[in-house]
Amino acid sequence: MKKYDDIIIGSGTCGYRAAEILADAGRSVLIAEKNDTVGGVCLNWGCIPTKAYINVCENILSIKDMKRFGIAATLDSIDMDKIHSFKNRTVKMVVRGLEKTLKEKGIDIVRGEASIEGGSVIINNEQYTSENIIIATGSRPKGLRGIEADSEFIITSRDALDLTDIPAKIVIAGAGVIGVEMATVFAVLGSDVTIVEYMDSILPALGNALISQQTEKYLRKLRVRIVTGTGTQSADRQPGIITLTDGSEQAADKLLLATGREPVIHQSLAEEGIETENGFIKTDRSKKTSVNNIYAGGDCTDGPMLAHRAYYDGEIIAGNILGNRREYDYSFMPYSVFTIPPSSSAGLTLDDIENRQDYIIYEKQYAASGRAAAMGKREGICRIITDSDGIVKGATITGHESDSIIHELLPFIQFGKSIEDIGSTVHIHPTLSELIFEAINDY
Amino acid sequence: MKKYDDIIIGSGTCGYRAAEILADAGRSVLIAEKNDTVGGVCLNWGCIPTKAYINVCENILSIKDMKRFGIAATLDSIDMDKIHSFKNRTVKMVVRGLEKTLKEKGIDIVRGEASIEGGSVIINNEQYTSENIIIATGSRPKGLRGIEADSEFIITSRDALDLTDIPAKIVIAGAGVIGVEMATVFAVLGSDVTIVEYMDSILPALGNALISQQTEKYLRKLRVRIVTGTGTQSADRQPGIITLTDGSEQAADKLLLATGREPVIHQSLAEEGIETENGFIKTDRSKKTSVNNIYAGGDCTDGPMLAHRAYYDGEIIAGNILGNRREYDYSFMPYSVFTIPPSSSAGLTLDDIENRQDYIIYEKQYAASGRAAAMGKREGICRIITDSDGIVKGATITGHESDSIIHELLPFIQFGKSIEDIGSTVHIHPTLSELIFEAINDY
Repeated sequence: MKKYDDIIIGSGTCGYRAAEILADAGRSVLIAEKNDTVGGVCLNWGCIPTKAYINVCENILSIKDMKRFGIAATLDSIDMDKIHSFKNRTVKMVVRGLEKTLKEKGIDIVRGEASIEGGSVIINNEQYTSENIIIATGSRPKGLRGIEADSEFIITSRDALDLTDIPAKIVIAGAGVIGVEMATVFAVLGSDVTIVEYMDSILPALGNALISQQTEKYLRKLRVRIVTGTGTQSADRQPGIITLTDGSEQAADKLLLATGREPVIHQSLAEEGIETENGFIKTDRSKKTSVNNIYAGGDCTDGPMLAHRAYYDGEIIAGNILGNRREYDYSFMPYSVFTIPPSSSAGLTLDDIENRQDYIIYEKQYAASGRAAAMGKREGICRIITDSDGIVKGATITGHESDSIIHELLPFIQFGKSIEDIGSTVHIHPTLSELIFEAINDY
Repeated sequence: MKKYDDIIIGSGTCGYRAAEILADAGRSVLIAEKNDTVGGVCLNWGCIPTKAYINVCENILSIKDMKRFGIAATLDSIDMDKIHSFKNRTVKMVVRGLEKTLKEKGIDIVRGEASIEGGSVIINNEQYTSENIIIATGSRPKGLRGIEADSEFIITSRDALDLTDIPAKIVIAGAGVIGVEMATVFAVLGSDVTIVEYMDSILPALGNALISQQTEKYLRKLRVRIVTGTGTQSADRQPGIITLTDGSEQAADKLLLATGREPVIHQSLAEEGIETENGFIKTDRSKKTSVNNIYAGGDCTDGPMLAHRAYYDGEIIAGNILGNRREYDYSFMPYSVFTIPPSSSAGLTLDDIENRQDYIIYEKQYAASGRAAAMGKREGICRIITDSDGIVKGATITGHESDSIIHELLPFIQFGKSIEDIGSTVHIHPTLSELIFEAINDY
């Protein structure tokens, strides 16, 4: 029987962030990881590899786009093996960086699936005890009732990232963030892409009409076919037909299931009395489960399924273990959709506001920005929402580098600062960040 | 004799910004502009057109770079006429936007050189009176003693932006911000570039060793020859020889003078009793000159020669005229150097700190960022400086999108916020902005 101060199940973003902070505070920390690689979905099969592909796609698109600027270039070939190994190199670099950090901090890692029994953690039949347990087991693709992924004809996003043959025709079931990012990648790499969404608009879960509308534009520009209000019924490998719930058929070489993710919850938790709610592990505001000294964070708990939410959860949990009482607040949680260009948002959206008189909406088109013009990136909108006292409550920016420039607004939203505070800051000329300043100066 | 509440001499950044605010407050405003076009140097012959060229160059460089990602592309041709017209379109778009705004706000514009006589403004022999006068006459290239620009062999940055034949060999005198940006542009467009700097390092006026060192790397990668500690002595058109002050000679088709800028000050000012100091119009902290009701701002007054400083001055002056007493503080004034990649800074630098014990330096390499890896942009550094109480005092970021991501830090520096405040914010994953968070989390 081995003893640690804290045992963390899962080395994904929530797990490694909590581990880092606890180890820095001088505590002995063990991480149980069932995969061969540390870092979880985000690093290995999610955020990082998709962004490597998105970068490749941006480069491909730029070749045609340069003509406008007087640069004639020809795309000679796309080498999928090389793209694939660039993606793998990128992932390996990040994973190695994390491994090094964990090692330097003296955090132990045991490979194997963990269960909790009588307050101890069991890994490979060995018993480990600790003061606290953190469950950070993440999520997995939800799949679709009656349609089983086979990694060949019917694939998950994880399979998709390992394809080295680009399918001539692909149907993507689900137009959430993963769906639209994968639609972008396949369309640019040369596939004929159809994206099928059961709800009436793409990206329905975001509840952000501006982003849904703009993303639709960005996808249509890449000739992605968008089918909404229809589910995916069945998939027939021979002769390659996807039947939708409205009875229509789509020919395809692959069906990519991007129908959301579900929490990974080990069966032993129920026996330990760890309660769940709507399929997620239930926690209080300090991220403590129904059992004392057992915490849970990241995708296996309810909240936006985002790597940086998991990171934030890791900090909340570690803080609470160290006695710095902290409660989570996801209301301002920002996110980006990494299409080309990307869209980003934080806090309140226009969709959230019922009585618009109580709010002020500031908006600026990218087309009005000198820098956007000089970059040839004039498509996009910067929108900022304040309450009637001028306190910044939310922002949505869709357009080139929106994932970077929105960060300036996050402290204003999080700390309850006003539009006047933004107005008194200086912006470097000429930058896309000036859009924020110009949006509020117009009023 | 025509009467206005406020007359502004110069429609550049300081002038138009003050005009906008004063007109919004219901005052009658006249702008005197000696050029055919509004917007001054920045819009017409500075920031905006150079950024159009930098964008073109980034695109050209990306073609070779894509090979790493598995995309084989060929640069077929560079059409300088088209690049030139893209640049002109960009400038026209921005100028037209400004014209529209000024018109909508009811601001009058008179074309012609203005002088001040007996408290009135004289334009084309017509007399205009006003409550306040704002002098925003900007700056012009300083040139070099004994070397006169002829717009053919010896050119200014303004001439350079209108070249449609790229010189085979160009010598750039002066490695300030304009010099290094133009060196980048010419090197990428195919010139053999030598940049000559009298001081011991490039970008000497910035006083930022990190940016000087990194910029040197970026230029050398483009095969720019850098000669420091040597001035430019003379230029001989036939046979195209530039002689340096150390006696050495450089063959060249063009000599570009980028030896700094000097304020434009009309001779009538001295007669009006408007004092100057070190060649700049002298003002107090409210940007008022030595004569009551006459203000001055932007490049014709002492301070960083930056468009956004001029914009800020315009706001200070308009605020003071409207009775909202404000004093300028340039200590946190940010700036970017738009090389490839760009470098950006605000507030204190390592160079400013004499006793390093009183400060804490946080640093993160771009190479440690997952997003930078996924973009193939791993060159760069993010450095944040706080005092011993953790109050953020300065930041220097050099690397891809640094001109965007530094904006998040500007409110922290300007409002005296702490590193703990940064630590409590959330960063979207995976973004380059995380570098800021990671820099401080490492400690």
